[in-house]
Amino acid sequence: MMSQAANKESEVDVLIIGAGPAGVMCANALAMAGVNVRIIDQRPAKVAAGQADGIQPRTIEVLQSYGLAERLLREGNQMHMAAFYNPSPSGGIERTSRAPDVTAPTARYPFEITLHQGAIEAIFLDSMKAHGVVVERPIIPTSIKLSKSEGELKDPSAHPVTVILQHLDPEDAQEVSEIVRAKFVLGADGAHSWVRKSLGISMDGEQTDYIWGVVDMVPNTDFPDIRCKCAVHSNNGSCMIIPREGDLVRLYIQLADRDVVDPATGRVDKNRFGPERLLEVAGKSFAPFEIAASGPVDWWTLYIIGQRVASKFSVSERVFIAGDACHTHSPKAGQGMNASMNDTHNLAWKLTHVLRGWADMSLLKTYEFERRKYAQDLINFDKKFSKLFSGKPRTQDNQDGVTHEEFIEAFQTFGAFTSGIGVHYEPSAITHDQHQALASKLIIGERVVPHVFIRAADARPYNIQDLLPSDTRFKLLVFVGATTDAAQAARVRTLADVLDRPESFYRRFAHGDPTKVFDVLSISSEGKQNVNYTDLPPLLRQHWSKVLLDDTDMYARVGGGGYEAYGIDPQCGAIVVVRPDGYVGMVAPINGLQDLNAYFDSFMAQ
Amino acid sequence: MMSQAANKESEVDVLIIGAGPAGVMCANALAMAGVNVRIIDQRPAKVAAGQADGIQPRTIEVLQSYGLAERLLREGNQMHMAAFYNPSPSGGIERTSRAPDVTAPTARYPFEITLHQGAIEAIFLDSMKAHGVVVERPIIPTSIKLSKSEGELKDPSAHPVTVILQHLDPEDAQEVSEIVRAKFVLGADGAHSWVRKSLGISMDGEQTDYIWGVVDMVPNTDFPDIRCKCAVHSNNGSCMIIPREGDLVRLYIQLADRDVVDPATGRVDKNRFGPERLLEVAGKSFAPFEIAASGPVDWWTLYIIGQRVASKFSVSERVFIAGDACHTHSPKAGQGMNASMNDTHNLAWKLTHVLRGWADMSLLKTYEFERRKYAQDLINFDKKFSKLFSGKPRTQDNQDGVTHEEFIEAFQTFGAFTSGIGVHYEPSAITHDQHQALASKLIIGERVVPHVFIRAADARPYNIQDLLPSDTRFKLLVFVGATTDAAQAARVRTLADVLDRPESFYRRFAHGDPTKVFDVLSISSEGKQNVNYTDLPPLLRQHWSKVLLDDTDMYARVGGGGYEAYGIDPQCGAIVVVRPDGYVGMVAPINGLQDLNAYFDSFMAQ
Repeated sequence: MMSQAANKESEVDVLIIGAGPAGVMCANALAMAGVNVRIIDQRPAKVAAGQADGIQPRTIEVLQSYGLAERLLREGNQMHMAAFYNPSPSGGIERTSRAPDVTAPTARYPFEITLHQGAIEAIFLDSMKAHGVVVERPIIPTSIKLSKSEGELKDPSAHPVTVILQHLDPEDAQEVSEIVRAKFVLGADGAHSWVRKSLGISMDGEQTDYIWGVVDMVPNTDFPDIRCKCAVHSNNGSCMIIPREGDLVRLYIQLADRDVVDPATGRVDKNRFGPERLLEVAGKSFAPFEIAASGPVDWWTLYIIGQRVASKFSVSERVFIAGDACHTHSPKAGQGMNASMNDTHNLAWKLTHVLRGWADMSLLKTYEFERRKYAQDLINFDKKFSKLFSGKPRTQDNQDGVTHEEFIEAFQTFGAFTSGIGVHYEPSAITHDQHQALASKLIIGERVVPHVFIRAADARPYNIQDLLPSDTRFKLLVFVGATTDAAQAARVRTLADVLDRPESFYRRFAHGDPTKVFDVLSISSEGKQNVNYTDLPPLLRQHWSKVLLDDTDMYARVGGGGYEAYGIDPQCGAIVVVRPDGYVGMVAPINGLQDLNAYFDSFMAQ
Repeated sequence: MMSQAANKESEVDVLIIGAGPAGVMCANALAMAGVNVRIIDQRPAKVAAGQADGIQPRTIEVLQSYGLAERLLREGNQMHMAAFYNPSPSGGIERTSRAPDVTAPTARYPFEITLHQGAIEAIFLDSMKAHGVVVERPIIPTSIKLSKSEGELKDPSAHPVTVILQHLDPEDAQEVSEIVRAKFVLGADGAHSWVRKSLGISMDGEQTDYIWGVVDMVPNTDFPDIRCKCAVHSNNGSCMIIPREGDLVRLYIQLADRDVVDPATGRVDKNRFGPERLLEVAGKSFAPFEIAASGPVDWWTLYIIGQRVASKFSVSERVFIAGDACHTHSPKAGQGMNASMNDTHNLAWKLTHVLRGWADMSLLKTYEFERRKYAQDLINFDKKFSKLFSGKPRTQDNQDGVTHEEFIEAFQTFGAFTSGIGVHYEPSAITHDQHQALASKLIIGERVVPHVFIRAADARPYNIQDLLPSDTRFKLLVFVGATTDAAQAARVRTLADVLDRPESFYRRFAHGDPTKVFDVLSISSEGKQNVNYTDLPPLLRQHWSKVLLDDTDMYARVGGGGYEAYGIDPQCGAIVVVRPDGYVGMVAPINGLQDLNAYFDSFMAQ
């Protein structure tokens, strides 16, 4: 029935192939930005159960920046506590300790959220829909071609990528193919990515020997930490517990090669090992506690950990790959979906700026630069963690085993990394590593540390992250310092004056209206009894809501200490440029217009 | 066209007349409880602007108990700060001080929310709709009759109230009337209540001399406190500022009789005074600051304060009145809508329990007992506040005027009252004033003080108010004390045993399933490292989520100190019974089954 003759042709700015976490994050961000985008998927419907399901603290912050965290927090389970079990001298296992699940002191949401992948994707699908974009499915791509014309590749308004799509509507006997000419294509089509293979991008790294089974179920158990993330090391193998939404619990169960690998093919064979046998193995690890499924198993699978990173993340900055298409690793550290979403959170604003003509094409090079390094760090972390986790526990009889202290140390050390909070982008066109001392704790290349400030006009407390939405704008955080000091007030007035001159980046890159490109927030170091928002020059208070104070709220319940937390001098202040994705791009002194100009000159277009 | 011949007859459990704040609160609560309810209104559509708009801290807590606060918080403006202006020695006004808008230290939401009445009602209408109830409009009642048969009045399953309704569908030339026989009728039909008048209930109290104008607009101003609640006392009259959602601001402006009252009728005449003149008067009060509307006025009105309370709130506990139908007062203290909603929050669960056969008809007497006293307190408060607010400020030339200190003192003193937090219900069948010393700071007859506890199973922090939803169930908060102490653990086991015996209220009033009537939460005074939720007897942990700890979360950010905050002994504990509306009904010792039995015996039915 496959008619290869295309009977439809179209153009689009961005074509996204694959509606998993990386794809829907990108599609939603572009839809919210008003970009002309299409997203296709080969599955006829979204996933209903199982799959990846852990959302890390930084990813919650990112969802919040798109206005999506409220629903995630409402629907998901929160993991606050981890518990560690090890062999007991009397046989079976016993609890060694309980600890925070997340070890990242600045996390705004100090926990992981678990919720099945379909429910998480639904949050994005509903938001996309409100912005007029729906996933077209089932559709598969059958051909992708990139123009070889340098002129075309360099022209942001050209459509140098040609993709042929095959519509697989099961109701339609006559299948339809379509030629799509796109400015940009994103391959977010999973570990077996068709886009990656079509472009001949290799995966570096290898498969491990670690084989695991996964079971989602409502347990019937007397195990007291069933609602905590548990690392269970027993002499009968290792297990991990991940509590889920409602009463569901996920078990990760270590398996032996001989049980699950088909010797003929060397591949995991799901016919050799069902959920009943997985629970049998788990039962041995959990003794003396009882654990069983209280009803039918919700979802299950088997897998071998592969730890690989794609050799490149884009071809000519016209076709990109993201998510599992460019990195695969162990699911147990709960990183997969998070790395995927953060890939395209990083990419979406860059595509938007280029498509709007606000930024030079070269901006797109920073995607691979920033995200491939992250993926490599992730694989390195995963190797260490998987080895420790899959290793035998140290006991009287096994002095070569992993000690509880080694495991805990790794758990803590990698805490900032697994939480996503510690992600650090290296210096580039959009990350200028200078004047760090002026805001010594707002690390350039890292996300803005959440902190509560109050609005000068009405003393309402706000977490500053809520004032840094992913709305494609650069945020200029003007820490105006001690505004009741006459000399400082004069410096602040001068800043407002020079920002408003034609030669300033603020006017040069305004594209008709600077408030569309830049959002200016002023933050005074003084208290709510002294400051009027009307004290600041108009450019630094373009709306009454744009002036903040570093003070407690009216009840002294939240707020205060922000300048100190950020390492900013309360007298002199500083200017902090925040990228549209919430990462610190640069720091400058109040009189540092020259540095600001240099920063935006390095990637912006007039 | 009015055909008095009814051509339709029907029965309903509860008929609500009027879809203002009191009506929709009641209809939503009953709809959520699955009660057979209808609600009618004479207006063809809901209000779009203006009217009452202030939601007090306690009312936010109440909305949260129905799952409705999230949207209110998202859509509304928050008032955190109040500012006070008085005559300046140099002429015009100057700021005397800024202060917290809310003076109730235990308020969970320490601010007022402002949002126009239509938007607030929409939150209820959407919730009701999700539970299958919509407002039928436009419909007016034309006759109400209550059966004189004692037998019928005492039988909860009888329909002793007969109401004739007139459908006013403007599209329908032939208007339809309908006879409705109801078990209960609620008149929530406003200050000019038809229900109240039909039943001949008098209003006690009188009209004041205070005449005020109200204007909603987006201001153009250099006044630095335009986003705070401001009390402006000038020598040119008094004004109050109430910032609203978006950039809207409401001004209350004091007026003189001669300007607005028609001498012929003695009534306020809106033709004598438009919004332009109101802003002119305001402008004089605000000097030297400028204030003007930046566009057309959104809404405006004039009013004379009336301070009246209905002589009774029900007839035979079959027809009730609520909201403005039974009390009217000054809108400036922002109490109207709050008192109205809290009237029916108080009534709805009582109607539900009686209709389900869970409670004796006598339970309904507590509605008037509790809410009429509150309304009287409110009027007394309002008299004092209005007098102070409408009075001339004290100046060099006017030594009889109100001093700033007097005004601030009243503002503070009445803070707990205006916030709704201090509402205190006197002893009655549902409020047994005994054993207060066992929980000395959870005041019997007051709402449960919000506090964060953590769940034993997963260390997730919860504000206890979120575990006390308005779901019609009584909550048994079992403060189990020091559960690792063997003697205390034995007492707790005994409690579980005796609760489960046939003679216990928990079994006697179970109506087949005690968990439908009672929700049991256990709260240990011990820490997260020591307690397993599995330690408690099954009746006290009917789900893993039902055991709490008085400890900080894993980051020590929230929680801990709950036993102390509630005045409960951490060794011995206590039992606190919380009414379905969130108010403390009684306190008992851990071995106090007898007192618990006596409490529920005083109003429950088997």
